[in-house]
Amino acid sequence: MPGSTPTVADVGEFGVIGRLRQRFGTQGFGVVRGIGDDTAALQVTPGCLLLATTDAAVEGVHFLRTSTTPRLLGQRILAVNLSDVAAMGGIPRWALVSLSLPEDTPLHFVDELASGLEQEAKEFQVAIVGGNLARSPERLVLDLTLLGEVEADRVVYRTGARPGDRLMVTGTLGDAAAGLAILVGQAPPDIPGTSFLVSRQRLPTPRIEAGRAIARSGLATAMIDLSDGLASDVVHLVEDSHLGAVVLAEAVPLSPQIRELSTAMGRDPLDWALHGGEDYELLLTAPPERVDDLIAAVGAVGLPLTDVGEVLAAPGIWLQRPDGRREPLGAAAWQHFARQDVTGEA
Amino acid sequence: MPGSTPTVADVGEFGVIGRLRQRFGTQGFGVVRGIGDDTAALQVTPGCLLLATTDAAVEGVHFLRTSTTPRLLGQRILAVNLSDVAAMGGIPRWALVSLSLPEDTPLHFVDELASGLEQEAKEFQVAIVGGNLARSPERLVLDLTLLGEVEADRVVYRTGARPGDRLMVTGTLGDAAAGLAILVGQAPPDIPGTSFLVSRQRLPTPRIEAGRAIARSGLATAMIDLSDGLASDVVHLVEDSHLGAVVLAEAVPLSPQIRELSTAMGRDPLDWALHGGEDYELLLTAPPERVDDLIAAVGAVGLPLTDVGEVLAAPGIWLQRPDGRREPLGAAAWQHFARQDVTGEA
Repeated sequence: MPGSTPTVADVGEFGVIGRLRQRFGTQGFGVVRGIGDDTAALQVTPGCLLLATTDAAVEGVHFLRTSTTPRLLGQRILAVNLSDVAAMGGIPRWALVSLSLPEDTPLHFVDELASGLEQEAKEFQVAIVGGNLARSPERLVLDLTLLGEVEADRVVYRTGARPGDRLMVTGTLGDAAAGLAILVGQAPPDIPGTSFLVSRQRLPTPRIEAGRAIARSGLATAMIDLSDGLASDVVHLVEDSHLGAVVLAEAVPLSPQIRELSTAMGRDPLDWALHGGEDYELLLTAPPERVDDLIAAVGAVGLPLTDVGEVLAAPGIWLQRPDGRREPLGAAAWQHFARQDVTGEA
Repeated sequence: MPGSTPTVADVGEFGVIGRLRQRFGTQGFGVVRGIGDDTAALQVTPGCLLLATTDAAVEGVHFLRTSTTPRLLGQRILAVNLSDVAAMGGIPRWALVSLSLPEDTPLHFVDELASGLEQEAKEFQVAIVGGNLARSPERLVLDLTLLGEVEADRVVYRTGARPGDRLMVTGTLGDAAAGLAILVGQAPPDIPGTSFLVSRQRLPTPRIEAGRAIARSGLATAMIDLSDGLASDVVHLVEDSHLGAVVLAEAVPLSPQIRELSTAMGRDPLDWALHGGEDYELLLTAPPERVDDLIAAVGAVGLPLTDVGEVLAAPGIWLQRPDGRREPLGAAAWQHFARQDVTGEA
């Protein structure tokens, strides 16, 4: 039909594949063969471990076409995977993208999504080396697998925290949850700083540089990225080791923007910071005598690192108030923060 | 509700993740960290290239819950990815599984799907080292990324065919397409051998051992797996090198079962063999003087390898009849073989 918007159906699957191939090319660090063969063929750096992670975005579950742009969608799916590589102290290298989409998807939507992937990939020097295109009758499903590498003697796992270790976080917490509250109309949008909070929700900044600085320092005993919120993720960090933790309420780092918004709304910003999720900052542990050096190492890449508590020998996760009173820091107590994201492994 | 079938909604996402984690564990060749950390951490064998490929199955597009079993679905998604690793001459090692599914999916469906993955993974010594679980309102979408490795001096790419090289295929061709014809009711199901053809459609056998034998021999110049059908895949094999090919009609290897079915139906089995797709056999090239050694190498792992034609210097793909007449072997001429699979990169 003349004048109508061209869709995926107009160029067919091979047309779409052709467009994507042209964009992503075949170059990149360690790429011996990229898109175009039966598999990619990649050269992992000797002495490095290979890192591999995957995350998906389902239309209507993780995003709405009306509330995000295809460019942001492409950037974000790569960003959340990058955050996982950051949490191992790794260097991101290669991505495979699996795209299932309705035939009536406008071509410019696919192009913009690819632009978002390309932009984020370029920023973090990731090569897109493979993928799959499929038809999905109702909804777009975007699946990304990210591969990275890290020196075998520098990798930082989730396990490894020891009683007496300090708990530290990069950046500020709760911004993404506050941004979500603004996006869904629970918070007034006319406070200064809301655009910062909304952008923290829409597109997290993966802490690759900080993760690298932490790994290279050799000082951290354990690390995880904050995808579910501090209250949940601190559990993930200590539960396998049958340990506990205490978080100091007054130590949790908050942005000026979240303070301003919470004052205007008359609520405690700590709710967002502890239970909000999707901040994609790093949570790590180290013995007390290494804290200053870690703060310096992360500071050298321009990010604050804050001591927020301690790993305990006895199981149980606690929030300690300024007066010394400890209360259980239950992840489940805050289900009123309806999560858009239902993924588990992120 | 007492007595009703438990679903994903009953145990929640973390319940499902727990079931899957327990099943897939953390062991396997080169697995330093499996499921349970921010990413998997894997040890690639020194001297090997890393291979990476991904493929998806969308409910209602690639499969129907009524026409396959969840166990077969799990086996098949791994099998088609394994075929891609086979086509590089590689050894499959690690998989990441991304599962997006409706909340009303019965738990036993998820368990059976996981059993299928586990069974196929065990058979091919693949460790499932990561994944993602998401909600998908209407349809199950199953995405699998497979990682493998191959000695850097033994990898066989798609490119590399030279004029005068012979074209060879493993196994027999067209069985999967004939099986599909039976499944959709286009062919009588009461011919002996139909169960063989249907099983070839339902669950292809990835030619890992043959691919390894070919790679180790160092004799092949190029290789690809036959996912789209010989007529299409021979194009993929020679087009990048601006070459052509001729396929000898009488040389195309056919199973006794497909001969019997085509006789009963009064049709030419070559239609299925050339244009049917989903056979997941290997198509390779090598100079004429290496053909006997390649046939011996593949024969040593129990599979026939058949010389079916020649790589030509001039572009164009031809089918040569027994009388020497050549006709264009157009992939597009056979669109009446409606493909269930619309994926591109498989």
